[in-house]
Amino acid sequence: MSVRELYGWMVQLITPRPIAWVSSLSQQGVPNLAPYSFFNGVGANPPMVMFCPANNRAGEPKDTLRNVQQTGEFVVNMVTEAMAEQMNQTAAEYSPETDEFVAAGVAKVTSAKVQVPRVQSCKASMECRVHQILEMGQGPGGANLVIGQIVWLHVAADLFNAEDQFLSEDFDTIGRMGGNVYSHTRDRFNLERPPRPADS
Amino acid sequence: MSVRELYGWMVQLITPRPIAWVSSLSQQGVPNLAPYSFFNGVGANPPMVMFCPANNRAGEPKDTLRNVQQTGEFVVNMVTEAMAEQMNQTAAEYSPETDEFVAAGVAKVTSAKVQVPRVQSCKASMECRVHQILEMGQGPGGANLVIGQIVWLHVAADLFNAEDQFLSEDFDTIGRMGGNVYSHTRDRFNLERPPRPADS
Repeated sequence: MSVRELYGWMVQLITPRPIAWVSSLSQQGVPNLAPYSFFNGVGANPPMVMFCPANNRAGEPKDTLRNVQQTGEFVVNMVTEAMAEQMNQTAAEYSPETDEFVAAGVAKVTSAKVQVPRVQSCKASMECRVHQILEMGQGPGGANLVIGQIVWLHVAADLFNAEDQFLSEDFDTIGRMGGNVYSHTRDRFNLERPPRPADS
Repeated sequence: MSVRELYGWMVQLITPRPIAWVSSLSQQGVPNLAPYSFFNGVGANPPMVMFCPANNRAGEPKDTLRNVQQTGEFVVNMVTEAMAEQMNQTAAEYSPETDEFVAAGVAKVTSAKVQVPRVQSCKASMECRVHQILEMGQGPGGANLVIGQIVWLHVAADLFNAEDQFLSEDFDTIGRMGGNVYSHTRDRFNLERPPRPADS
């Protein structure tokens, strides 16, 4: 099976994937913004996330990877339905000199702990410092596993009610499926975690 | 913010998460089956996945971690709606001597390339060999990042039509949200990837 076929199966089968809309800065100070769905939490003690920028079909690394290698900082902005179109716009392969915030018409705002700006309209953002970057293969489809420690967390004020409770149902993130397909997350159900069995 | 609070925010914000229903074998040959939602693809060249078993509240490692450390093998079984209840049943903390396949009434079947059995009724499974395990923190909420290379891929025959095309809409995986909440993936939409911009 070719690398492209393998990649095709991975994105069709590993679903639904959360989307990290990653902002970063080049050494020259050019802001970058691009979505990654090989992304997730790692652990909470300390709080770590990971995402995996893959090399393009020419085997070249993404601008995001170069930026986090050089500056050691990034912000993960979470994508809700209202931001889907703009997120998708930043998936285009812009040149390193292009500010994707400007190209996609996305307003930026200063972060609290890192130099990298975050997306103003996102309802949640995680400011991160690079903990470790692992090369996972080379050439087209080869990837790097970027692990970052969360150093600051933003959650929009309108996601809390008057009693300061988080309104999780209003946080309507979208998930990545295969191809150009996304899933909504408004159709939800509950499963109570089973009790600790008597035998253990 | 406490580790528990941080973990709570991570699982509420990083959504929807794909679920790896991981089967493994202890050195004594006892099968284990448990769900992990800090899970995703890493890259396709070579094909790699990752998942992160976190220590429990007492700071003890999960049986799955010990198993993959000792045997170097695991299978990621993907969870569709029909398997949700049984998957949830295996989230209970059974003793290391318990075969979770039996405890949750899940039929197992022999794998093609690894000793670890896979879940018979799952519509897709990825047989994996451990590539690397990274310790990411210690104590309660500390995790290990397990990276595995996919060595064999199973996709159920009924997910293909007569022309051998994959029926992605019939692959109704569920996603993990915060708390005890899950999302369906049947409500989908398309976004065409934008063309390469003229400036690059």
